[in-house]
Amino acid sequence: DARFDPKEHQHLRYNPLRDSWILVSAHRMKRPWAGQVEKPPEEQIPRYDPRNPLCPGNTRANGEVNPDYESTFVFDNDFPALQPDAPDPGADQHPLFQSKAARGVCKVMCFHPWSDVTLPLMKKEEVVKVIEKWVELVEEIGITYPWVQIFENKGAVMGCSNPHPHCQVWASNFLPNEPALSDRCQRKYYEKHGEPLLLEYAKQEAEKKERVVVESSDWLAVVPYWATWPYQMLLLPRRHVLRLNDLTTEEREGLADIMKRLLTKYDNLFEVSFPYSMGWHGAPTGPHLKENNSHWQLHAHYYPPLLRSATVKKFMVGYEMLAQEQRDLTPEQAAEKLRNLPEEHYKIREN
Amino acid sequence: DARFDPKEHQHLRYNPLRDSWILVSAHRMKRPWAGQVEKPPEEQIPRYDPRNPLCPGNTRANGEVNPDYESTFVFDNDFPALQPDAPDPGADQHPLFQSKAARGVCKVMCFHPWSDVTLPLMKKEEVVKVIEKWVELVEEIGITYPWVQIFENKGAVMGCSNPHPHCQVWASNFLPNEPALSDRCQRKYYEKHGEPLLLEYAKQEAEKKERVVVESSDWLAVVPYWATWPYQMLLLPRRHVLRLNDLTTEEREGLADIMKRLLTKYDNLFEVSFPYSMGWHGAPTGPHLKENNSHWQLHAHYYPPLLRSATVKKFMVGYEMLAQEQRDLTPEQAAEKLRNLPEEHYKIREN
Ligand SMILES: O=P(O)(O)O[C@H]1O[C@H](CO)[C@@H](O)[C@H](O)[C@H]1O
Ligand SMILES: O=P(O)(O)O[C@H]1O[C@H](CO)[C@@H](O)[C@H](O)[C@H]1O
Repeated sequence: DARFDPKEHQHLRYNPLRDSWILVSAHRMKRPWAGQVEKPPEEQIPRYDPRNPLCPGNTRANGEVNPDYESTFVFDNDFPALQPDAPDPGADQHPLFQSKAARGVCKVMCFHPWSDVTLPLMKKEEVVKVIEKWVELVEEIGITYPWVQIFENKGAVMGCSNPHPHCQVWASNFLPNEPALSDRCQRKYYEKHGEPLLLEYAKQEAEKKERVVVESSDWLAVVPYWATWPYQMLLLPRRHVLRLNDLTTEEREGLADIMKRLLTKYDNLFEVSFPYSMGWHGAPTGPHLKENNSHWQLHAHYYPPLLRSATVKKFMVGYEMLAQEQRDLTPEQAAEKLRNLPEEHYKIREN
Repeated sequence: DARFDPKEHQHLRYNPLRDSWILVSAHRMKRPWAGQVEKPPEEQIPRYDPRNPLCPGNTRANGEVNPDYESTFVFDNDFPALQPDAPDPGADQHPLFQSKAARGVCKVMCFHPWSDVTLPLMKKEEVVKVIEKWVELVEEIGITYPWVQIFENKGAVMGCSNPHPHCQVWASNFLPNEPALSDRCQRKYYEKHGEPLLLEYAKQEAEKKERVVVESSDWLAVVPYWATWPYQMLLLPRRHVLRLNDLTTEEREGLADIMKRLLTKYDNLFEVSFPYSMGWHGAPTGPHLKENNSHWQLHAHYYPPLLRSATVKKFMVGYEMLAQEQRDLTPEQAAEKLRNLPEEHYKIREN
């Protein structure tokens, strides 16, 4: 009888934040890849491009002119998926044809006036400014809207159509599927175990160490036990924190630091500006501000698609879409690779 | 007060098979696209390629030689994500670190001896042979395994690494997330309304007509009210049928016919071999064969990624991954476009 080896033997792992299972088949990395390769990202991006609508001083699609901003810059998305005033589709008729009103706002936030930098290449003080702006936005928009989703699509392979460093903020009058599911899961765990799911998880991971990639006194970045994407990351504070605007000044600075370290390792993995989608999940806002949300713990998810190299990604297709997500290396293997990478960015080393 | 217009006003729609919501923001199609474009699929594929491991008579990675097959051909996947004999990871220790044994089989099925055909370009009798082989596989493998997932990844953009027409069959000793969710949703509906969810849905859609793309006396293909992917399709029999192997001879022939019609329209949309992932969902098998599964209705899901053209896909990224899926045209707009396309394949017309 063979002894179980997670690197050799496929198995299922449970994701307690989504109440679902992942199929881990690490032996699959051995198969050769003859499929699609991606274009590597453009390495020569001009610091200023007169045609780029995100650069300081340029004119956007709707005719507005950007200020000569020197730090972050926030404006309303010119093609918003959510607008504040859409009419109601009306009462539901049939249980199989249900619709609901959706209202909200979509904003774009530039991280820096230059197009040729990314978060890991920015100065720590500049990343602190980004975090402070996030805090401000959650606080402001969260007064009215129950959910404020901050997210960054980075790299053309992640549908990002503009190389200028930026993220988006979409706020809605409803709790979207993913945070609603996460809310249910965290609540159930709290009711059963009397402590926040992710606080206990962070404690366990800090002890086990095998999935930790970077850590500091305030923060922890791990490849979660239930990671779906090859180099997926969960970034969270060690202290019980509900929302971005509950972070202390020290924790914000610590966050800038750990983000720079983490994203530098990401870039160093394949020596390429690492594509991903990332976003923040914290306790809901708006009407939920008055509720008890002790079951929540603030965290960021990083979902990067690359699997084998700068140009070969993991395809979440057929079996994944129709049956269940499957991964080709263990979370422990991914964490070890990232952990062993230098914390100096390959582009800085090159110069 | 503006009157609600689904093409102009964003709204949410409920997916009763997944108990989740979709954000429909059809006005978003107006934004210009400056992002990633895909390579169009290779148009000149040789009928026989001596290096292609799926062609008749060729040697595969493991040294096995394919027979000179003349219709379909099934073999065990040389790099299976599921194997029949993986050891058990052992009893769970902590609720946040749960794992389970995963066992199963992975098979590959070639549709045709030629590499330069696809289902819509095959003769109807040849497609019937594919369906008959599906039936055989569900019946055989379904004796022991609770879930037999038949799926096709078509096109490099969907991670398909071999242009030879083929699908895969992954069977498992567990009910994967997606069918488990679908099972729960169909069961709940049945308990509440006393009839199968998808049977009632098909009846409603056949009357409403606005989302129907192709239909016949036995089959219906609609862009579901809750479609996520731009040109997503739900294909299902009109009669109450639990599994592929419950179809009558006539229904199998009708299926070959409607598949050819549907996939021809797909190819005609952007005059390109239309990429997608598709797969069959029917009542669970193995130990579930003895249970009452009346709440189930057999159906196929088609998830095609293209949005704007042969080279511009929909990116399910940031907001979709972290919050909720969002679409850029209404299901009714998609259905109308497909419905109005000719049923003669553009490649046949060209010759
Ligand atoms: O086995 P294939 O076709 O090479 O692999 C493809 O389909 C699988 C099942 O959907 C996925 O897990 C892989 O990521 C994808 O590349
Ligand atoms: O608004 P963008 O960045 O152009 O659009 C991108 O991100 C959105 C939010 O995740 C997605 O809905 C789009 O499909 C994607 O192309």
